[in-house]
Amino acid sequence: MSDPIDLAGVLATVTAPWTPRTVALLNDYDVRVVRTQGEFTWHSHPDTDELFLVLAGSLTIRTEDGETTLGPGQLHVVPRGVRHQPYSAEGAEVLLIEPSATVNTGDTPSHLTAERRLVGEPQT
Amino acid sequence: MSDPIDLAGVLATVTAPWTPRTVALLNDYDVRVVRTQGEFTWHSHPDTDELFLVLAGSLTIRTEDGETTLGPGQLHVVPRGVRHQPYSAEGAEVLLIEPSATVNTGDTPSHLTAERRLVGEPQT
Repeated sequence: MSDPIDLAGVLATVTAPWTPRTVALLNDYDVRVVRTQGEFTWHSHPDTDELFLVLAGSLTIRTEDGETTLGPGQLHVVPRGVRHQPYSAEGAEVLLIEPSATVNTGDTPSHLTAERRLVGEPQT
Repeated sequence: MSDPIDLAGVLATVTAPWTPRTVALLNDYDVRVVRTQGEFTWHSHPDTDELFLVLAGSLTIRTEDGETTLGPGQLHVVPRGVRHQPYSAEGAEVLLIEPSATVNTGDTPSHLTAERRLVGEPQT
């Protein structure tokens, strides 16, 4: 059988914030880890919910109705179509789960839009 | 906005092993937490992969090809159709993600088959 996927071990290889790595597939969903730091692009995903689980640090998810701050072991699902802005002053390590076709900036491409990258793929 | 979902907080309310609680929905998937202890039923899920992420303790997933042991922050996806037996000598707290219709014992009903239970629903 395959070795377990160690999330902190994968994140230790990631230096740039907002560059998710896909660590596993679950049917047609990606399981991703990402390092967050500062403000991300305001955006929404019209076709899917998006799960955030904080592994380390602190992540705030701002929406037009308020904000939720997550610490380690806390999760939040942003419903489809809800505009949101992840924000992390101190930085965080985060697990994301969403359909494999989901782009990190959703309906709002920006300089932070990232290509889908599977762990183990050569860096481009 | 809603408060974050604190996984350890939910698990603190669960005493019986192998009784998952659904803490959030992600499209048509359930995000569940479960306390594991001892041996679970050998089974498979013919129609879906199943994600295990250990939050605390240690969980072994046995298959006919070997086994994988997960500690905190480690995850494994059991592919659809693969017979497996979760086993946890010391006990563990585990996050599960799978389609909402998924039954914990899959194709092999047993005394450990659990009804789907959402957090906040009255106990039956």
